[in-house]
Amino acid sequence: MRTIRLATVLLSALLFIKCSNEKEKRETQNENKPLNFIIIFADDLGYGDLSCYGNPTINTPNLDRMAQEGQKWTNFYAGASVCTPSRAALLTGRLPVRSGMASNKRRVLFPDSKYGLPASEITLAEQLKTVGYTTAAIGKWHLGHKEQYLPTNHGFDYYFGIPYSNDMDMVDGLLPYWEYWQQPNDSIKTAHFNVPLFRNTEIIERPANQNTITKRYSEEAVSFIKKNNDQPFFVYLAHNLPHIPLFVSKEAAGKSKRGLYGDVLEEIDNGVGKILDAIKEEGLTENTIVVFTSDNGPWLPFKNNGGSAGLLRAGKGTTWEGGMREPGIFWGPGNIKPGLITDMGSTMDLFTTFSTMSGAKSIDDRILDGIDLSETLLNHNPSPRKSVLYYRGTEIYAARLGDFKAHFVTQGAYGEFGKRQEHETPLLYNLSHDAAEKFDIAHEQPEILEQIQKLVDAHKSNLVMEKDQLADRE
Amino acid sequence: MRTIRLATVLLSALLFIKCSNEKEKRETQNENKPLNFIIIFADDLGYGDLSCYGNPTINTPNLDRMAQEGQKWTNFYAGASVCTPSRAALLTGRLPVRSGMASNKRRVLFPDSKYGLPASEITLAEQLKTVGYTTAAIGKWHLGHKEQYLPTNHGFDYYFGIPYSNDMDMVDGLLPYWEYWQQPNDSIKTAHFNVPLFRNTEIIERPANQNTITKRYSEEAVSFIKKNNDQPFFVYLAHNLPHIPLFVSKEAAGKSKRGLYGDVLEEIDNGVGKILDAIKEEGLTENTIVVFTSDNGPWLPFKNNGGSAGLLRAGKGTTWEGGMREPGIFWGPGNIKPGLITDMGSTMDLFTTFSTMSGAKSIDDRILDGIDLSETLLNHNPSPRKSVLYYRGTEIYAARLGDFKAHFVTQGAYGEFGKRQEHETPLLYNLSHDAAEKFDIAHEQPEILEQIQKLVDAHKSNLVMEKDQLADRE
Repeated sequence: MRTIRLATVLLSALLFIKCSNEKEKRETQNENKPLNFIIIFADDLGYGDLSCYGNPTINTPNLDRMAQEGQKWTNFYAGASVCTPSRAALLTGRLPVRSGMASNKRRVLFPDSKYGLPASEITLAEQLKTVGYTTAAIGKWHLGHKEQYLPTNHGFDYYFGIPYSNDMDMVDGLLPYWEYWQQPNDSIKTAHFNVPLFRNTEIIERPANQNTITKRYSEEAVSFIKKNNDQPFFVYLAHNLPHIPLFVSKEAAGKSKRGLYGDVLEEIDNGVGKILDAIKEEGLTENTIVVFTSDNGPWLPFKNNGGSAGLLRAGKGTTWEGGMREPGIFWGPGNIKPGLITDMGSTMDLFTTFSTMSGAKSIDDRILDGIDLSETLLNHNPSPRKSVLYYRGTEIYAARLGDFKAHFVTQGAYGEFGKRQEHETPLLYNLSHDAAEKFDIAHEQPEILEQIQKLVDAHKSNLVMEKDQLADRE
Repeated sequence: MRTIRLATVLLSALLFIKCSNEKEKRETQNENKPLNFIIIFADDLGYGDLSCYGNPTINTPNLDRMAQEGQKWTNFYAGASVCTPSRAALLTGRLPVRSGMASNKRRVLFPDSKYGLPASEITLAEQLKTVGYTTAAIGKWHLGHKEQYLPTNHGFDYYFGIPYSNDMDMVDGLLPYWEYWQQPNDSIKTAHFNVPLFRNTEIIERPANQNTITKRYSEEAVSFIKKNNDQPFFVYLAHNLPHIPLFVSKEAAGKSKRGLYGDVLEEIDNGVGKILDAIKEEGLTENTIVVFTSDNGPWLPFKNNGGSAGLLRAGKGTTWEGGMREPGIFWGPGNIKPGLITDMGSTMDLFTTFSTMSGAKSIDDRILDGIDLSETLLNHNPSPRKSVLYYRGTEIYAARLGDFKAHFVTQGAYGEFGKRQEHETPLLYNLSHDAAEKFDIAHEQPEILEQIQKLVDAHKSNLVMEKDQLADRE
């Protein structure tokens, strides 16, 4: 026994010498190597939809592992509570009112929309290209479906995905929109949605086969990583699910206890696992950062086909926390210092943070709303983000300063679900004590309302709104 | 460089030989060594109160680590939605109606109560004593404050704690109960509650200093572990917090972003860390199992001084999920197979599981409601628990079978908060799809209601209720 063990130990020692040499070599390389960035962006996924954020029946082991090995942010915000403006915010690091991607007339872009993200905007992809990154947009775009607005005209070298939401382009002869969704899930077919699938600027499939789309997005990301393992890259992987209609591959169907919605999330999670594996296989663990978040909260009127905001109030379309606060997971062994981060962050901060980390020149010809989170990610310093503005269309409905959030206007999600209510005395909540926004304390702390009002006034005083790009139809 | 590294490697190799010998020695010992059991039981802590269950501002790194290294159960139930019956259920492995610890007249025991847990009941401590365990009850008892009902007369070798809730024995001259709690937290003093602190059967402090009590409980547990490191032990550590009134030590005060309630939880979590450290220091990691859970859901009428049930509906006192579903964390490297467990479990199962694991004789002179979860804990086999009965007092308000829960009666928490409503057609929820109990599907799946009714009928047909032990006053 002893002899065998000794032999094993010596073998281990030799391997150790070899490995540590290799590791040293790699680390030296890595020190000079720029970081790769991967943003995995889900659609309509709620704060409470991952097991690491308390979901009782959706099992997301790969995202849980990302959270465990990296940072789990619990006060991380999307830039808006619906799709198009939220995506504009992430990619430009600016509030959507600044790019014309927020509107009071049409909340998002549609297949008949005339415009898209203006060419004058600088996307994170364009910013990273200035320092030599190779870039890919995989998944849902929703910032303009005409060629001049597609990802390939906004800094991405490669695009594979659908140009707007997966519930658009419904074929003729179906029930009216809201009635359609009252049917059992079996009656809802991927062929009912004539959504095009693009590769770069070409439509390669129409209707896109949504049963396999989640899996294909993850595979596209993996193959892009493998192809570009020797250069800095940026992958923006924007799944079009779990936005309704919900579809999964045969392999994922019926696997989750949470039903179809859970199957979809577990298929996304499975793809996350494949991406992490690819990063490891390519030896890129030490110089790649992966972020996971979502564009806005769960679409609650769809009941069990929508997600859960956990303890947070309301969901998609609203400026309650459930509409805009999202899981925010940062993974990157060797760079991201693991831990729970209860400070604030925003998807807009990704622009600024990754710009800084990549060494790109800072932008000084326009106002950016993103804040550099590097020191929090790398060293657990307090987050420099101290406030959040909650826009609905082009109007500020609520604002957060430190622990406190004031609601000037509240409103439910959509159409019949949403009744607008203006508050003469704004509602005030201490979100650190009362994340569920249950206990209005405006009358106890009027001085805080004043501070928040000042913040909003200061913001408005230098705000230049871009012309509404969402309202016009062809 | 190369020389230094080679020397390091050889040193590592030598250490490796030494360590692996020691580990082997310890493992051989452990194979023959019985398991130690530690149950850490919080009071009024909600499903959503730990960071690993999605809380955004309460930071519980030690419990998170337990969950990460062990099993995190997301469908784990307390035996009742209030204190006394829940504790009886855990310690006897039986529904509280079987031991007379459930009542429709008084929901829990009070300082003027006449009785307690009957001597005829077999507690987990008594069961483990039959196979040579040393046992300690530390913390809140609430199963009878008279000597014959105290832990030392129910199988515990040692007792350190308070006999009932920390809000009892309020001193004269204070405001009426509900008005008292409207004051700011600063006005609420530990001296206002003349609760006695016992060591064994002696009162050693009155009023108990609740500012230091959480810390002292954890210290007592640590010193008991250290004293008994050479024999099998069972520690039942039942914190009396975060039940109101909330108190913390100076060290913990003002530390949490969640305010006083968060400070309390973080002090409990800190104690968990000390206990895990002690287990490691004593070399007991491989043969100790630690469980963390709570007696019932959050006491919601106390607003920010109560906890959060996360996505679950309602809280303490109710038979909605928020009243009885709790965090359930099992830690025990080498025994507990790590992972997320979305199957059902109950605090009553601890009795049966730990009896089996300890080799104690099974009990055949009475009905047990606990089910052996060993195979799930050790091997991830599906949980054998397929149903849960939700009693309020001596009446079944709801029952769960597999994914489905039927509510025969619903009612809010207490007094003015609770309006009783009987449902001619029970409400039916699919808890796997709809943990928040939002979407009644009784009319879609009447056959499931029938199955649940059969389960309840079968249970009632052989139910022998013990005489109500809670109703009588001195």
